[in-house]
Amino acid sequence: MENRIGFIGLGIMGAQMAARLLDSRHSLVVHSRTKSRGSRLIARGAKFVDSPAEVAQQCDIVFICVTDTPDVQAVVSGEDGIASCVRSGMVVVDHSTISPAATREMADDLSKQGAYFLDAPVSGGDVGAREGTLSIMVGGDQAAFDRVDPVMRAYGQTITYCGPSGTGQLTKLVNQILVSVTNLAVCEALTFAKKHRLDLEKTVAALAGGAGGSWQLANLGPRMIVGDFRPGFTVNLQQKDLQLVLQAGEKSNTSLPAASLAHQLFTAAQAAGHGKDGTQALFTVVEKLASLH
Amino acid sequence: MENRIGFIGLGIMGAQMAARLLDSRHSLVVHSRTKSRGSRLIARGAKFVDSPAEVAQQCDIVFICVTDTPDVQAVVSGEDGIASCVRSGMVVVDHSTISPAATREMADDLSKQGAYFLDAPVSGGDVGAREGTLSIMVGGDQAAFDRVDPVMRAYGQTITYCGPSGTGQLTKLVNQILVSVTNLAVCEALTFAKKHRLDLEKTVAALAGGAGGSWQLANLGPRMIVGDFRPGFTVNLQQKDLQLVLQAGEKSNTSLPAASLAHQLFTAAQAAGHGKDGTQALFTVVEKLASLH
Repeated sequence: MENRIGFIGLGIMGAQMAARLLDSRHSLVVHSRTKSRGSRLIARGAKFVDSPAEVAQQCDIVFICVTDTPDVQAVVSGEDGIASCVRSGMVVVDHSTISPAATREMADDLSKQGAYFLDAPVSGGDVGAREGTLSIMVGGDQAAFDRVDPVMRAYGQTITYCGPSGTGQLTKLVNQILVSVTNLAVCEALTFAKKHRLDLEKTVAALAGGAGGSWQLANLGPRMIVGDFRPGFTVNLQQKDLQLVLQAGEKSNTSLPAASLAHQLFTAAQAAGHGKDGTQALFTVVEKLASLH
Repeated sequence: MENRIGFIGLGIMGAQMAARLLDSRHSLVVHSRTKSRGSRLIARGAKFVDSPAEVAQQCDIVFICVTDTPDVQAVVSGEDGIASCVRSGMVVVDHSTISPAATREMADDLSKQGAYFLDAPVSGGDVGAREGTLSIMVGGDQAAFDRVDPVMRAYGQTITYCGPSGTGQLTKLVNQILVSVTNLAVCEALTFAKKHRLDLEKTVAALAGGAGGSWQLANLGPRMIVGDFRPGFTVNLQQKDLQLVLQAGEKSNTSLPAASLAHQLFTAAQAAGHGKDGTQALFTVVEKLASLH
């Protein structure tokens, strides 16, 4: 029997992912707090319902793509949430980046009713969602993962089963440490170069292929140089994820001096009005710090 | 007329580079403080002389590959140094990583005698030297650069003319900021992963191709995981270069909080006996810091 598929949360990421499910000829039930966000999907045959509970009533597999921990908790455990209509064998897949601890709680709750909650945060941004090249890091029951893996191929390219509940989120947080501290490396390196009047384009070209090379240098370096702060991934979202990193670190007694420094400097970026800019706006903070007088 | 070529400093890097010059059928005059280091080159036809001054007497182009600023100053300006025998039109190429300010002083001194001093630090390690795939960042007179560029192709793959004297060293220091802070990003990310009992190989595989990816993650991450601390580039040399970074930063009033943090944690690595290990040994410090009790 064909799985009935639901999708909750139709923001920039969710709407693109749901559209790719329609491309793959899945029939789709969708819900979003703002109904207008579903209009394009409805025009293509998706069925819009008014609550997460109704999605759960009509579907065997329910994807969630919202922003933060309380948003997912509301969708799952809130009034008219999924948990109020959950059935044995149902699989709930959370593509949001949220707290690993809260993830495990929701997985425990659903498992008591015979249902599965998989944490499956993504990376690759709206471009990855549109082109179907997202990386997806999945934690939770492995048999449930095997059922949804083929469905997620509609938008995921690198799909990794990481282990038990929470390990998808933890792997995403590892990624956020890498992303934010490597970004800071690029900011300081280019600031040093600029203060010493090096040709910045030439410097990036000379170094990008060597031991100092990174995705952040190759992709964000050129945007820092020309002051293009249009967002791939916003400072505000980076900060939300760094808060999750530092909270998890505190719980596990893991000292993270560099990620903490990046978080503090991103706070300065937010204070300077760069919250909705791309994470490459961190460069402005590091550069100003190096030019105070 | 064929250029007569000299090479001073036959350590791990210099000996490999000189050997590739012989491979390219250049006739070579060499000098090293320790004569035994030249034996393989002498057996292949290189002529060993007893001082930098003698190299300068016999050669039009002289390469230097030693360790630190005082070593280069001794080779150039010391007793029996190159400057004592310098002739108009001679080109001295310094492959060591040293102070940009000291570099400019030596270039000024030699220019008074009509000779050229190019700063040309390399990256790519002993493997790059052996295989002829080094990156070389060059500062100084452009016409002098054009003369030595074809010769350096014997061991250099990516050769970038960066600008006036000192800009090669400054570009190398930009690289050292990138390398050390990105390394720290990998250390913290893998420490967070290990403390949360993630499968480390799987984590690196899931993230290396994405926005958190870097040369450091792909190359040093796997060695950190298995505790392989054999040096590609040693902690002691990284510290020497970070000192140059922070000195240059102080002179130019450039605040470098992340590079400074990396420097402090590498100091802890040296204190723990990892000075001669590879820079991936930074992982042991970050991991211990996260596991004190």
